[in-house]
Amino acid sequence: MRELLGGKGANLAEMTRVLGADRVPAGFTITTAACVAFMAAEEMPAGLDAQVDEALARLEAGAGRLLGDPDDPLLVSVRSGARDSMPGMLDTILNLGLNERSVQGLAEKTGNERFAWDSYRRLVQMFGNVVRGIPGERYEQAIAEAKDGRGVELDTELDAADLAALTERFGVIYREETGEDFPEDPSAQLEASIRAVFESWNGRRAVEYRRLHGIPDSWGTAVNVQQMVFGNKGDDSGSGVAFTRDEITGAPKPSGDFLLNAQGEDVVSGVRNTQDLDEMAEALPGPHDELIEALGTLEAHYRDMQDVEFTVEEGRLYLLQTRNAKRPAQAAVRFAVDAVAEGLLDKAGALATIDAGKLDALLHPTFDPGHEYEVLARGVAASPGAARGTIVLSADEAVERAGDQRSADDREDLILVRPFTEAEDVAGFHAARGILTSEGGKASHAALVARGMGRPCVCGAAELDIDLAVGVVHVNGHDLRAGDVIAIDGSTGAITLDDVPLIEPEVSEEFGTVLGWADELRRLSVRANADNPEDAAKARSLGAEGIGLCRTEHMFFGADRDRLVKLMFLVAEEWRRAHVRDDREQEDPGAERARLHRLGEADERFRSALDDLRALQRADFAGLFREMRGLPVTIRLLDPPLHEFLPVAHFEQELADAGEAGAGAAELERASAALAVARDLREANPMLGTRGVRLAVLYPPIYEMQVRAIVEAAAEVAEAEGEQPHVEIMLPLIAYETELEQARAVVERAAAEAEAAAGREVPHSIGTMLELPRACLVAGQIAEHADFFSFGTNDLTQTALGLSRDDVEAKFLGRYVEEGIIDRSPFETIDVPGVGELVEKGTERGRAANPELKVGICGEHGGDPDSIAFFHRAGLDYVSCSPYRVPIARVAAAQAANADAGANIDS
Amino acid sequence: MRELLGGKGANLAEMTRVLGADRVPAGFTITTAACVAFMAAEEMPAGLDAQVDEALARLEAGAGRLLGDPDDPLLVSVRSGARDSMPGMLDTILNLGLNERSVQGLAEKTGNERFAWDSYRRLVQMFGNVVRGIPGERYEQAIAEAKDGRGVELDTELDAADLAALTERFGVIYREETGEDFPEDPSAQLEASIRAVFESWNGRRAVEYRRLHGIPDSWGTAVNVQQMVFGNKGDDSGSGVAFTRDEITGAPKPSGDFLLNAQGEDVVSGVRNTQDLDEMAEALPGPHDELIEALGTLEAHYRDMQDVEFTVEEGRLYLLQTRNAKRPAQAAVRFAVDAVAEGLLDKAGALATIDAGKLDALLHPTFDPGHEYEVLARGVAASPGAARGTIVLSADEAVERAGDQRSADDREDLILVRPFTEAEDVAGFHAARGILTSEGGKASHAALVARGMGRPCVCGAAELDIDLAVGVVHVNGHDLRAGDVIAIDGSTGAITLDDVPLIEPEVSEEFGTVLGWADELRRLSVRANADNPEDAAKARSLGAEGIGLCRTEHMFFGADRDRLVKLMFLVAEEWRRAHVRDDREQEDPGAERARLHRLGEADERFRSALDDLRALQRADFAGLFREMRGLPVTIRLLDPPLHEFLPVAHFEQELADAGEAGAGAAELERASAALAVARDLREANPMLGTRGVRLAVLYPPIYEMQVRAIVEAAAEVAEAEGEQPHVEIMLPLIAYETELEQARAVVERAAAEAEAAAGREVPHSIGTMLELPRACLVAGQIAEHADFFSFGTNDLTQTALGLSRDDVEAKFLGRYVEEGIIDRSPFETIDVPGVGELVEKGTERGRAANPELKVGICGEHGGDPDSIAFFHRAGLDYVSCSPYRVPIARVAAAQAANADAGANIDS
Repeated sequence: MRELLGGKGANLAEMTRVLGADRVPAGFTITTAACVAFMAAEEMPAGLDAQVDEALARLEAGAGRLLGDPDDPLLVSVRSGARDSMPGMLDTILNLGLNERSVQGLAEKTGNERFAWDSYRRLVQMFGNVVRGIPGERYEQAIAEAKDGRGVELDTELDAADLAALTERFGVIYREETGEDFPEDPSAQLEASIRAVFESWNGRRAVEYRRLHGIPDSWGTAVNVQQMVFGNKGDDSGSGVAFTRDEITGAPKPSGDFLLNAQGEDVVSGVRNTQDLDEMAEALPGPHDELIEALGTLEAHYRDMQDVEFTVEEGRLYLLQTRNAKRPAQAAVRFAVDAVAEGLLDKAGALATIDAGKLDALLHPTFDPGHEYEVLARGVAASPGAARGTIVLSADEAVERAGDQRSADDREDLILVRPFTEAEDVAGFHAARGILTSEGGKASHAALVARGMGRPCVCGAAELDIDLAVGVVHVNGHDLRAGDVIAIDGSTGAITLDDVPLIEPEVSEEFGTVLGWADELRRLSVRANADNPEDAAKARSLGAEGIGLCRTEHMFFGADRDRLVKLMFLVAEEWRRAHVRDDREQEDPGAERARLHRLGEADERFRSALDDLRALQRADFAGLFREMRGLPVTIRLLDPPLHEFLPVAHFEQELADAGEAGAGAAELERASAALAVARDLREANPMLGTRGVRLAVLYPPIYEMQVRAIVEAAAEVAEAEGEQPHVEIMLPLIAYETELEQARAVVERAAAEAEAAAGREVPHSIGTMLELPRACLVAGQIAEHADFFSFGTNDLTQTALGLSRDDVEAKFLGRYVEEGIIDRSPFETIDVPGVGELVEKGTERGRAANPELKVGICGEHGGDPDSIAFFHRAGLDYVSCSPYRVPIARVAAAQAANADAGANIDS
Repeated sequence: MRELLGGKGANLAEMTRVLGADRVPAGFTITTAACVAFMAAEEMPAGLDAQVDEALARLEAGAGRLLGDPDDPLLVSVRSGARDSMPGMLDTILNLGLNERSVQGLAEKTGNERFAWDSYRRLVQMFGNVVRGIPGERYEQAIAEAKDGRGVELDTELDAADLAALTERFGVIYREETGEDFPEDPSAQLEASIRAVFESWNGRRAVEYRRLHGIPDSWGTAVNVQQMVFGNKGDDSGSGVAFTRDEITGAPKPSGDFLLNAQGEDVVSGVRNTQDLDEMAEALPGPHDELIEALGTLEAHYRDMQDVEFTVEEGRLYLLQTRNAKRPAQAAVRFAVDAVAEGLLDKAGALATIDAGKLDALLHPTFDPGHEYEVLARGVAASPGAARGTIVLSADEAVERAGDQRSADDREDLILVRPFTEAEDVAGFHAARGILTSEGGKASHAALVARGMGRPCVCGAAELDIDLAVGVVHVNGHDLRAGDVIAIDGSTGAITLDDVPLIEPEVSEEFGTVLGWADELRRLSVRANADNPEDAAKARSLGAEGIGLCRTEHMFFGADRDRLVKLMFLVAEEWRRAHVRDDREQEDPGAERARLHRLGEADERFRSALDDLRALQRADFAGLFREMRGLPVTIRLLDPPLHEFLPVAHFEQELADAGEAGAGAAELERASAALAVARDLREANPMLGTRGVRLAVLYPPIYEMQVRAIVEAAAEVAEAEGEQPHVEIMLPLIAYETELEQARAVVERAAAEAEAAAGREVPHSIGTMLELPRACLVAGQIAEHADFFSFGTNDLTQTALGLSRDDVEAKFLGRYVEEGIIDRSPFETIDVPGVGELVEKGTERGRAANPELKVGICGEHGGDPDSIAFFHRAGLDYVSCSPYRVPIARVAAAQAANADAGANIDS
């Protein structure tokens, strides 16, 4: 009933059932459906009034008192309650039913005039603030004046008369601000409060919270109307919140905050210093023991760690609310392990209590939580973990200062600071500890690459004004330069100049236990995306069962390789052009001979450039095969947007430099020819241009070279280690089944030749990325030429939705989330209705045509728990994600399998 | 049986049935399946030999003679026969069965020694050339030597002994070239010839022909083995080809070419001047009359104009082949009209004989076919029709020289010559008669825009070296400059400097009749894509039933408007930025006041820029509404790739110009700010960037302005004309149903306000483009907010296939067609398995959710007959294409309806 009653409403009903009616104040719930209707019509739904009146009558009958009765008033609270908890985001009004007359009745009945006036004063204040939007400062100021007038310091030092006067002053404020009198009629109070709760669903705070937490705007909130109990009726009363276990560590001892003689909001507001539960045991031993017992009952009932609100009214304990406790990753893991040990939950149930998405907090360094620091500026928390180091302002500088990238331990700690990053900066990511940019968001190049590598990253810190020309970063009055030390927290977006100590992560024993259970329970395999032995080793240590995606174009980054690759593409294009016979060459044998001569020369240069690259690639692949011994390694053949390897600006600069340096005619001609080629190959939409398998059609020797390098590396490792590497060769960006048919033939021929040359067989399978909508639709035909599919959901999202990731997030996807057009970015979590249907269709049709087909996914979504649940349901064989997300994926896959089993039992 | 027997084989079998066995030489057919098996295995299929032997034995029994019998040899021909005719592209070998001995038998039996040796010499020559690839020149040279030796001029002057000697010489050539003797064994001749025909399927000519005509490589060819008959047996023999109607005009009188005492290849080779059928009537009156009768019988049987090969052997007429005649558009139309008048066909049948794709030849100027001219260079025939005019080298110059674009008749004839064109050149297309580029192909910007406007265009004429800096076009030794006169033929790709007269088109009475029938028979509506009153008028005159797509961004081209639009986008962005509150502004009221001041100023400037544009747009829309009175006009709200309106290079130039001109600080600052904005808005993949409805999210006032202009224009026209325009407002690039929901609300609000201001209701419907894969998949949800769908198949093809039209055609789509990866470009004809499924799904799901939904298509495919047939089958309501393709679409839609009805009857 959560959908209808909201979390709080359903919870109250259930809590009453579990603890008995005596422990829970009576009440009723107005459903979320009423809120949805209210939002659509922008007016209160017809018939709601009557239903509220009826429920109120029942409540009054049960309590034996009437709302606002002048002699013995029933008071009620009106609280929001969304399907998912949104703490503090929606409105609450307390003490409804009080007015000038019933306040007297309350005073008489409780024998506590001060309490009655305090309650009334709170109602007038809260109603004015929440229902009518009167600024809180107006009330604060009046209170301050009252205290000044009485010469006291604390609110509690104001007596009943003071509070009565203050309430009158609040009434004047109400009239000044609204032009109306505070409504004395309890029914009018109630109706206005219900409306205010509905309206608070679309308040700024609530909308923002939902955006951050991925809660749909369409749900609406329920409204709970409940009899008030009072923690401020004297020293035998009090209020508090309690957790069934330690809220930080998850240790099996209840924790909480308590205030004597206070209402609940005093506890959460932080105005007064709270006491802990041990102190409560001294002050109110009976209620304390009842509370501890109730906590145990609730946890056993809900089978999850609980977060409880309670009030003690004149010695009697009431539980106002219980909910599953939000908890940091370490507490979640600890609870899961203890719950199984205690027999509270089975492994599947324990796993279900963990928010998988939070687990990577356990795998990255963090700022020491005990150390306070001054925030210099904030950006987007784009890749988790904290880092501290020396500022470098270019990738080249980072690479230079870091020296040999592979020996990570003794290199200098660097933070790469850039306005934004591009493909050619990737080597700098390897060299740096963390990345900080002033532009772009969670889906920017910097964020994606940093997450992939497990580097902390703060993006889009707009307060940074980075002047690369003079090498200065202006930020809030500071001028930072290369060499200055800075620290960033990619989990919060904080940037600081302070010397904050970092805490290095350890995989705790409990975490290991939880991951072990996940492995027992999940059906999906989990692989990692890794392009070098370092990442492969990290992935394996985090439990990856293979490499699902090795992006060979990433192997070409780094200054030395970059030169080779540029040269290779330039001669490849020369080679391609020399193949084309124009009309003159078809007619004039002399011209044709010249063309053939050109072709011969280009061919020689092309082969030579490829040989150089092959030697490098062979070593790269051998390194991967060694690290992943016995596990599958999926190598995607080159899929560059050509413009990243042949950027026009680079060749313009080179030509300009050559000119300035007074280079000779030959050198100038060479530079100018290279620039011309780069310009010719420039594309209006490189994302939809000459990429992937299309490259194999234009320049087949490139893929041949890569296949040879793969086979040679595998043969070498098999020879040395005595075990065959498990090689999977993947062809990217297939749209037509015939592309794959032809490219597969190229791969098979090259592999056969390389096997013959190596003198041994190298078993390998050949498959393809499904990353274009057409490929998913014709997956049946494609599967006839494929041993496996791997959905490239990044590109599939880009094409299915017509969104260029590089361009849209900063510009309008954020705006889309703000305006409720989408709940979460389709690059964060898979778009089920669109991209998801393509994944399902591709899987079904591929398997129908080729029952042996292995199907996986290797986009960013492979590390997102919601997406993993979808991939499980779609029947995929594996997900592949960045190494640091492998533990998340393992847990999420187990949760998905468990939810699925649960759904099957339900149905 | 065409698939299996090929056109020719099926035809021979049927022709025998229709005309009787006496009129058709006996024979048998080897199926296409054997060819397909041969191509796959690269060897002759097992069992084929035995089957050929058996069939040959039957043929020999029927003829009463044996193949190669030394005394009275049976001779056979071996001819290819594909499913669709590929004239001259595949191989043929005649006179098989002759050798050193049977040539004597033939001479004796026919009493014509010269004929026998001539036949044998032809076999040796043809076999060497076709089966063994010996260059034809070797034989030609030997014939020339023989004639020189005899001192004669003509082949026919060589006598039997000369020909015997020549045959011996040919045998030597055969040995020299192949190292083998010419095969005397008739069975070996037959087997090698069959193999050669199979292999000719993959010959260069055949592959190229298929590519041009969209015939799949997979079909293969059949092989027809048929008894030879001889037209060279003396003056009572002859050969010819005949059409049942005039082959050029379609007039109802047989036409043809005939040669006395000759074999068929002499007729088609053009070596001898042929006679017409009237001359044949004089030379061979009996066979002539029999031929005329047979032509009538065949046409009546096949119910289509026939193209027949015949031979008269010693007075007896044989028909060797008949097929539906290829014919120019005017003959096709004339035949269709006459066939109905004669009762030969009903209207549907007559329409089916027309190649709809060729019809636009009737709507464009052509070079006078009677005028010979020298071809200066050739390019891609990118948009049909011919044009002649003065060269201009920039769009601006074209606009300037053309003066007022709208008075088309008295403006100067111009040819716009550019390396390639871009969006900002479009005004130049209007001003010019034709467009010529040195880069790009059929899918280039120049080709697309030219076809859309009906301007002749030749693209990618690579021999042109266009040096814009000095204003010279170097081409094959000529240096052309602005002001020189040039002529282009966009139907053939020819470019000439000659003064070729142009023939202006007229829509003939017959064409009108045919279009009338099409309108009776088709189910699909046909609309046109038109952005201005001139195109709208043209479209209406060609039968368009509405405007299916008015691209409002095209209304912004032209120098004066361009300035306004640039200004508008700059202030729009300024306005958007002023909306964003940064941290400082949230905290510091002074900063916030400054922001609000900025916002106020930006808002004022934005509104003022929009007001200027609104006045222009209102006039534009009013013009369209007037032209299309009573018919629907679908107006697509702005869908620009922003970079086309804010090109960085433009603003760089402007800043540089301002600097050079010594502009003041304010002016420099303005130019520099504009450049910064243009740089900020630059996108990596504009195709997938800030376009369409996304604009409405960032800058809602732009769509509001357009809606106001539409409503005001409609109100104005309704007032003036007394008839309500039929207004359809279309929102582009919807991916999420929520985008449409929100944008629809913006449109409705703006429309209501404008209606209120105008004081009258303006009925309008609101719909959306379906041009993203996701939109097609969630069409059900989208349809809840749409009155109509229009599939934008251009963008849908780009996204579903991950192909940027601007980038890929020149680079690899052509290569894909060459390599057989695809048959035709997906931008020419719809990709049925991929894009087609999305169109079907979108239609089904949309209609299921909203049965009232109107569904159309407005991509380039709307003018392609094959695509139209698909759209008919998919159940769309209308297609919309460029004005000049409207008649094609009308006919193709009728053909589709008819084929569909036929399919239903068949099934």
